[in-house]
Amino acid sequence: MHPRPAPARPVSKQTFKTQVLLLREELLTVQQRLRHATFPVIVLFSGVDGAGKGETVNLLHEWMDPRWLRTRAYAEPSDEERERPEHWRFWRDLPPKGQIGILMNAWYAGPIDDRAHGVIDPLDFRRQLLRIARFERVLTDDGALILKFLMHLERETQRARLKALERDPLTRWRVTEEQWRQARSYDELVAAEAAAVRLTDAGQASWTLVDGSDERHRSLVVARTLRDRITRHLDEQARGRRPRGGTARILAGKAAERRSVKGRGPTDHLARLNMTRSVDKGEYEVELARAQGRLNMLHRKAGKRGVSTIVVFEGWDAAGKGGAIRRVASALDARDYQVIPVAAPTDEERAQHYLWRFWRHLSREGRMTIFDRSWYGRVLVERVEGFARPDEWKRAYAEINDFESQLIEHGGVIVKYWVHITKDEQLRRFEQRKQLAHKRWKLTDEDWRNRRRWKAYEDAVDDMVTLTSTRQAPWILVEGNDKNYARLKVLQTLGGRLAKALEE
Amino acid sequence: MHPRPAPARPVSKQTFKTQVLLLREELLTVQQRLRHATFPVIVLFSGVDGAGKGETVNLLHEWMDPRWLRTRAYAEPSDEERERPEHWRFWRDLPPKGQIGILMNAWYAGPIDDRAHGVIDPLDFRRQLLRIARFERVLTDDGALILKFLMHLERETQRARLKALERDPLTRWRVTEEQWRQARSYDELVAAEAAAVRLTDAGQASWTLVDGSDERHRSLVVARTLRDRITRHLDEQARGRRPRGGTARILAGKAAERRSVKGRGPTDHLARLNMTRSVDKGEYEVELARAQGRLNMLHRKAGKRGVSTIVVFEGWDAAGKGGAIRRVASALDARDYQVIPVAAPTDEERAQHYLWRFWRHLSREGRMTIFDRSWYGRVLVERVEGFARPDEWKRAYAEINDFESQLIEHGGVIVKYWVHITKDEQLRRFEQRKQLAHKRWKLTDEDWRNRRRWKAYEDAVDDMVTLTSTRQAPWILVEGNDKNYARLKVLQTLGGRLAKALEE
Repeated sequence: MHPRPAPARPVSKQTFKTQVLLLREELLTVQQRLRHATFPVIVLFSGVDGAGKGETVNLLHEWMDPRWLRTRAYAEPSDEERERPEHWRFWRDLPPKGQIGILMNAWYAGPIDDRAHGVIDPLDFRRQLLRIARFERVLTDDGALILKFLMHLERETQRARLKALERDPLTRWRVTEEQWRQARSYDELVAAEAAAVRLTDAGQASWTLVDGSDERHRSLVVARTLRDRITRHLDEQARGRRPRGGTARILAGKAAERRSVKGRGPTDHLARLNMTRSVDKGEYEVELARAQGRLNMLHRKAGKRGVSTIVVFEGWDAAGKGGAIRRVASALDARDYQVIPVAAPTDEERAQHYLWRFWRHLSREGRMTIFDRSWYGRVLVERVEGFARPDEWKRAYAEINDFESQLIEHGGVIVKYWVHITKDEQLRRFEQRKQLAHKRWKLTDEDWRNRRRWKAYEDAVDDMVTLTSTRQAPWILVEGNDKNYARLKVLQTLGGRLAKALEE
Repeated sequence: MHPRPAPARPVSKQTFKTQVLLLREELLTVQQRLRHATFPVIVLFSGVDGAGKGETVNLLHEWMDPRWLRTRAYAEPSDEERERPEHWRFWRDLPPKGQIGILMNAWYAGPIDDRAHGVIDPLDFRRQLLRIARFERVLTDDGALILKFLMHLERETQRARLKALERDPLTRWRVTEEQWRQARSYDELVAAEAAAVRLTDAGQASWTLVDGSDERHRSLVVARTLRDRITRHLDEQARGRRPRGGTARILAGKAAERRSVKGRGPTDHLARLNMTRSVDKGEYEVELARAQGRLNMLHRKAGKRGVSTIVVFEGWDAAGKGGAIRRVASALDARDYQVIPVAAPTDEERAQHYLWRFWRHLSREGRMTIFDRSWYGRVLVERVEGFARPDEWKRAYAEINDFESQLIEHGGVIVKYWVHITKDEQLRRFEQRKQLAHKRWKLTDEDWRNRRRWKAYEDAVDDMVTLTSTRQAPWILVEGNDKNYARLKVLQTLGGRLAKALEE
């Protein structure tokens, strides 16, 4: 059995007119309040054809201020979209904080349609819905309000409506062969919708079932729901209520729980490194050239196959990330890679979820994107410096794993480096930088401040390595006291990872 | 005869090594200085295959800090790019202020290749080059430094180089059939390049001819040119030197000259409007429904044909732009249009040319984009409030005409409205807004301030209408004292413009 909305109660034309007059005022007021809020509102519509999705969206545009309301409708992905993970196109369209984004035929459309027409099996369907639930959770944990409307219509009502549309010469164009095809799969579509609702009905991303048979009724239900849910969310935010961390912690993985919350001892990934490792100059030069040649060859092969490579560099200040990146870059053709230096977010980025600015930098297929610092800032500097609240950085481990798994599923290769140096070695390099005129700009007050929190960073690195080393995207720890050794290890392991990925 | 670079002087390996060591230091220092500068550096490479374009770019990446250097290479446009004017993809990749962007096969590649292979005739070629010159001028007027390198190679040297590459198994992959095809058109390519250099060699966007036959020589020439030109530009900026307005004024059109500079009387576009125009309520309602229905039908037709519509709304505060936009929007399907409210630029936008933020909002084909205020802010508020210098807003007329002509050439329709009200009517509306609780947010101190500069704005509007009313994108002045009359006029003329565009 699938869920059914409360049946439409007929609304007289006069009542409707009076109510709408009031509702419009209220919606405009809500929009004004929202503009100063620190969260976005995402509105999704699902439901069979003829249930009034398009009409309702048009009505909302008429009633509300179209300047703070943006609608995107999805059809076939463009080639730029196809060359990135499936959710890239949704991420790029997410409304910034303070605005309402209506996304039509967004993330539910594909799975529901595929399931109804037997393109995917129930297990695959379930897997996709759980991914969606995680995605929505990532957004709502960050404060977003997601309103999902399922517009329902009985099978006979749908048929009658399509026929009526066909009879009217002014609306005939709206009924396509595709719609009749969908109507023939009515039962399967409704069943898939019901399953989707069951699996993805959660807290700040709950479903509202709407009887679509009466236009006035459904319009009022949707508009009132918008008004009430946004108002409630605004009030809660004003009272300083934060999203609850309960489920977030569970999602973040038991390990984080054990480690950071109950204070189990560290796994000491860093302490176990043999920091005396080094390579002599002669060997370095020979091996560097060899590793660069191999990397060049492998990256060309990856390019031809459309395999994207994402390389993440994290490490202590002065650990030699920049030098390692230059050695990787100089093995490649400048056309085929980009280096993304990650510093403070821009204001457009601050108006979005913290992962948004990394999604936007994902390149098209076959290229290498090198992140000089990355999304791991959330669980490193933001954790240590308190820029993120504990519930925020704790759930970030799971969010990051999920983000990376989407890149991998799309055929990408992720290679992550923590370039490690000892505290003594860092001091030596800081002092050296002070001496050298052309390196002095590299040394900032922040570097000294970070150094004072060495222990806290060590804990954060240890958690990060434990919680985000997945089978397909393990952390590679690089012993960096000897720069040449570190560079060689980076180049060789990067080649190794690429080679392995291309073998499959 | 085509221009020839100074012939390569052989550089010994030892000399090269010593020089490079020094050059790299200097380039890194230049990059550091540049990071705080208020202009971007755009580097373009042109020249026949084998002359070392790719190799030189790779070398620059090796020598410089890859974090502040971004390279984009262009091949076939993606479908998202194809659905916008040709230059859209270059605009989207322009480096922000403080950074260096190397664009490979950018705007010269298409015209030179097309000319060399006879796809376009000399006249078309010339027209395209002049457009490029205007485009570069727009960027350099804004402070950008554009470095263009033409890498030259004699025909026989080229043949020998391609053959040598083919002999070496490590480089064989780099020689493609396409390269031999290009080599067969050597004379035509070199002639087209020479013509391009002649027509586009200007001030801050000048060409440097480089003999590409010797690798060490050409690498040093390019690196030194980069170092010297950027340093000079930095020094000039530090001394507060502005780009000269001389040519800019000529480009901006004689009319601006006459009107604003020598103080010829205004053309009084606004004074000539009959501001008593109105429509009675009954007629309004009938005609509104009719005009909306017609607009809906026409926009669907435009959508099918892939015709983009760009609608610009400018007007006094409280003139009723928002109300008119809502009436247009409610005639359309929410999926098929977007409203772009133009407020203060974000920091990403501030790091670019002022037109950049409008280019980025151009939608794919077949949609309507409604700008609530627009690029005309440059010659309205920025002129009146002094946010733009006189040389900046004076040249903006030509820049804007050029921008719009690109949209039109791509098959777009531009409709521009100035919604006009009298000063008395504005006061009445301001007072009314003060009374109405739900409209009070609309009235800001800025509105009162703008009102005090009524006369200055009148002059600015008059100039704008005179200087940017082109045959294909004329201003439509809307008598707005009667809101219903204004809304009707907007809907009817918009329908009229669309109908006309679709006829052709």
